[in-house]
Amino acid sequence: MSLNENAPAVILVEPQMGENIGAAARAMLNFGLTDMRIVNPRDGWPNERAVALASRADLVLEKARIFNSVAEATEDLQHVYATTARPRDMIKHVATPSAAAKAMHELEAGGGRAGILFGKESYGLSSDDVTYADTIITVPLNPDFSSINLGQAVLLVAYEYFQFADDTPDEIIRNEERPATKKEVIALFDRIESALDEKNYFDPIMARRPVILRNMRNMFQRLRLMESDIRAFHGIIKGLTADKKEK
Amino acid sequence: MSLNENAPAVILVEPQMGENIGAAARAMLNFGLTDMRIVNPRDGWPNERAVALASRADLVLEKARIFNSVAEATEDLQHVYATTARPRDMIKHVATPSAAAKAMHELEAGGGRAGILFGKESYGLSSDDVTYADTIITVPLNPDFSSINLGQAVLLVAYEYFQFADDTPDEIIRNEERPATKKEVIALFDRIESALDEKNYFDPIMARRPVILRNMRNMFQRLRLMESDIRAFHGIIKGLTADKKEK
Repeated sequence: MSLNENAPAVILVEPQMGENIGAAARAMLNFGLTDMRIVNPRDGWPNERAVALASRADLVLEKARIFNSVAEATEDLQHVYATTARPRDMIKHVATPSAAAKAMHELEAGGGRAGILFGKESYGLSSDDVTYADTIITVPLNPDFSSINLGQAVLLVAYEYFQFADDTPDEIIRNEERPATKKEVIALFDRIESALDEKNYFDPIMARRPVILRNMRNMFQRLRLMESDIRAFHGIIKGLTADKKEK
Repeated sequence: MSLNENAPAVILVEPQMGENIGAAARAMLNFGLTDMRIVNPRDGWPNERAVALASRADLVLEKARIFNSVAEATEDLQHVYATTARPRDMIKHVATPSAAAKAMHELEAGGGRAGILFGKESYGLSSDDVTYADTIITVPLNPDFSSINLGQAVLLVAYEYFQFADDTPDEIIRNEERPATKKEVIALFDRIESALDEKNYFDPIMARRPVILRNMRNMFQRLRLMESDIRAFHGIIKGLTADKKEK
């Protein structure tokens, strides 16, 4: 099997233990994933414990890229998954690892690329981190004993991805369009946020501003916008915020 | 989920490290398996390192039974699987973890019971051990990096077993929300259209107005908006079109 350049990125958000980063690298390479991205590793980078644990998967660590935010780490991707065990009070698609794996291959077949967020060992992903995701992946676990570690979570998601690697996708996006990148989605959202601030929209309800913005960001992440949709929304915003044109 | 008494037994053959026995116990309990059997553990039994690693899965270790041979450890079972990465010069059925999981549930439904053999860390199962199995389970792995440890092997096989036990749908939207009605979608779109007309947005491009509106309408129909999304969009439009609020 040759490794696929468009295979999903594995994005570790604020990982704490080098050992777990190394275990994640092994789990990735076991199933043909090589694009590791790390957002604010607690103990800096490079990490000797990670290398020691990764063994021959150190090539994944050598290629790993470090980012300052989830937004930066996901901006070239078309679909972002957040792995989380806890239910969230958000409107999000929720998929099993198997369903997500199938969807990732379909995205790939259409020229897109996915990333999967994994949270820190102690607490998982923050609710703010999750807002950057289109879809939540939850591993079905025995409800009476549902703690798995970071390396195991990466292993199970990567395993499912690999199971579908040889399958022909059942469905592809049938058009010449490409899905929007996260950079485009985030830029669109930032523009709306700025436009609302420009109008002092939040002034009477400033206490609710963070919650409203988080809900809106969740919504835009979920809508599976195409590149042309982004342009359409920019047109709408331009139209709505412009001064009235003279006849 | 209640734990099933006829769920498969996990049989560790000559395991070497207590840590791996503990990790196997955790992986089992994560996916509802509790019948651990150990054939000739290298460091005797009980094993303190196993207990330390098992954490709350120590109940699996407390129930674990020790045997002197694979034959004895499997004699009450109807079907035995051997997990092995290396090809064997034997005539055996070979199954993926997924196919084996399906067959185990079928066996269970018919009143039977399966067991799964896992070999020692250094070498896996001996060819003699494998002769006691009906079927080989091989985890599909990247051929260039195919080493997984004992705990991971148990995790993947137990995970697949649990997938067939769990009737969670593959993908859901987790909330109490309802999808928007088409009436709501159309009303939203009509409001945007009116707001753009109000600003004379289309005046310089009047010939393209029908195409632009059709594309926008297509987009809003495709986005699978929820009822709360409709409200969010109305809020955005209100904010963007309002006169600037006074400080």
